[in-house]
Amino acid sequence: MIELVQPLLNGDRRALARVLTGVENQQAGDVLAAVYPHTGRAHIIGVTGAPGTGKSTLVAALAGGYRAQHKTVGILAVDPTSPFSGGAVLGDRIRMQSLAGDKGVFIRSMASRGSLGGLASAALDAIRVLDAAGMDVVIVETVGAGQSEVDIARAAHTTLVVEAPGLGDEIQAIKAGLLEIADVLVVNKADRPGAENAVRALRMMLDIGHPVERHHGRFIAASPVSVAEPPPMWIPPVIATVASKGEGIDELLVAISDHHRFLVDHHMLGRLEQEQIEVEICERLRNVLVDRLLESLPQGALMEVVRQVQARQVTPQRAVEVLLGQGHI
Amino acid sequence: MIELVQPLLNGDRRALARVLTGVENQQAGDVLAAVYPHTGRAHIIGVTGAPGTGKSTLVAALAGGYRAQHKTVGILAVDPTSPFSGGAVLGDRIRMQSLAGDKGVFIRSMASRGSLGGLASAALDAIRVLDAAGMDVVIVETVGAGQSEVDIARAAHTTLVVEAPGLGDEIQAIKAGLLEIADVLVVNKADRPGAENAVRALRMMLDIGHPVERHHGRFIAASPVSVAEPPPMWIPPVIATVASKGEGIDELLVAISDHHRFLVDHHMLGRLEQEQIEVEICERLRNVLVDRLLESLPQGALMEVVRQVQARQVTPQRAVEVLLGQGHI
Repeated sequence: MIELVQPLLNGDRRALARVLTGVENQQAGDVLAAVYPHTGRAHIIGVTGAPGTGKSTLVAALAGGYRAQHKTVGILAVDPTSPFSGGAVLGDRIRMQSLAGDKGVFIRSMASRGSLGGLASAALDAIRVLDAAGMDVVIVETVGAGQSEVDIARAAHTTLVVEAPGLGDEIQAIKAGLLEIADVLVVNKADRPGAENAVRALRMMLDIGHPVERHHGRFIAASPVSVAEPPPMWIPPVIATVASKGEGIDELLVAISDHHRFLVDHHMLGRLEQEQIEVEICERLRNVLVDRLLESLPQGALMEVVRQVQARQVTPQRAVEVLLGQGHI
Repeated sequence: MIELVQPLLNGDRRALARVLTGVENQQAGDVLAAVYPHTGRAHIIGVTGAPGTGKSTLVAALAGGYRAQHKTVGILAVDPTSPFSGGAVLGDRIRMQSLAGDKGVFIRSMASRGSLGGLASAALDAIRVLDAAGMDVVIVETVGAGQSEVDIARAAHTTLVVEAPGLGDEIQAIKAGLLEIADVLVVNKADRPGAENAVRALRMMLDIGHPVERHHGRFIAASPVSVAEPPPMWIPPVIATVASKGEGIDELLVAISDHHRFLVDHHMLGRLEQEQIEVEICERLRNVLVDRLLESLPQGALMEVVRQVQARQVTPQRAVEVLLGQGHI
């Protein structure tokens, strides 16, 4: 695929599409290596939240806003669920059809094929490819509210968590458990009953969250020892939007831009990226190591320990020790 | 903690509580090993679904149903989100207060502390402890709809996926992406408008899902080659409930029991357990291996490759190779 590198860097859409397919099929290693020095320019925005909050419509509205600012936008919709999600992908595309035909926007959906670890690293690679292709903004939308979505959202510089009124009571809202990764909170569908309450509840929740120290815009546990120079605090704003009507989008664009400026002004962008790279490397190591160990095991060794565990002769913990003794890296 | 083994096996509630705390703090290895031969008796039921579907109320209603059948019930509420989820745990307990004071029910909440891998294995260990303590039924409720919740739900013999009307349109329902792990689909809050549509949409979706072969009650991709003897098929029933009023619970109990009988009659329980054990062992291996490699690295080696990746001098993929060369297991 190496012949696609130069067209990709020139922003050629067909090259971009083909490289992204290569990334999904784990066949783009050489292209990734070649374009990697050209990454690091885009502002990466993560958008996550429970189903039903209108994330795709919001992403389309945001993209429209950036287009009005003459910025190019790459959209990556990541669905960590299953083969069944073909329908969801189609749905997203329908919702984003307002963007169709605009050469300044590139939309791509990625669904899980096989392991989740595989999806997360493919998503990171896809973000880099969109970045290298010259997108000013890359928006990564993840479906659902589980840890995997959180992990993918954390690859962003600015993470939007989207809520909507009427999805459940306040306790359920906390349950979604996304507050602490939010740099900007969005209450979408704000023309529905209960929107003001939702905004108020979220603002209150952020107050209850104190005292916590914030660190490049994310909560960390308050340290028991006093620190000489506490890091500057970013308090996530709560923005009400009606994405389907374009309401609140300008305010949201300002909030996102404020957060980016906060990171830059306080020299936090580099530290954030450093942490993200460390997490990514450890995840990749994890996957490579287990693959190597399993390949090195004698024929049938794994099945034999599984049989013993199932027969309640050994615990799963002990089985792991046995396999570590039998294999090598 | 080894002195707790006999009381635990006798069903002593204080011993059970203390061992579960030990499991959460990863300090119960000896107890787990001692009680492991006494596990494998309980019927393990996973309950998952998006926030707002009323899972906790449904779990409480199910537990009440089993109590009426004189079965003992362990409930494990697993929240793969964050420290913030203390509130959710409290909320669950409030919702389940109808069960308070019943010695035949034991409720425990587990929240994420540190790594998700840690939570998933702690949850598996906690299920085994409840099983060893003599619970006839162990209900594992997970919050959210991400891969991590799916992984935990897969540890069950029978997985319930809970939906509710009005949480979003059909596309969103597919998006939750939980259909293919469902052994029984529940449309809770069925007294709300749209419930019949939701039931119909889910039944239709299951039809669209064909032709797929089903395998111990879960979807797998249809094989392109014809198989001499196709595995028997379990078609997940769709049950409408109003858990808060106890409506539909009897029907749901029958559906769960039908699924369990299906697994037993077709000798699928053993195969299911075998697959679950294999997944668990590989996950545990993954965590142990990366920990060992990182510990073996020369001082500062990880930070140095992170720096090089951040400076765009090497790709994350190359960084992994470098670390594999510098460390050992």
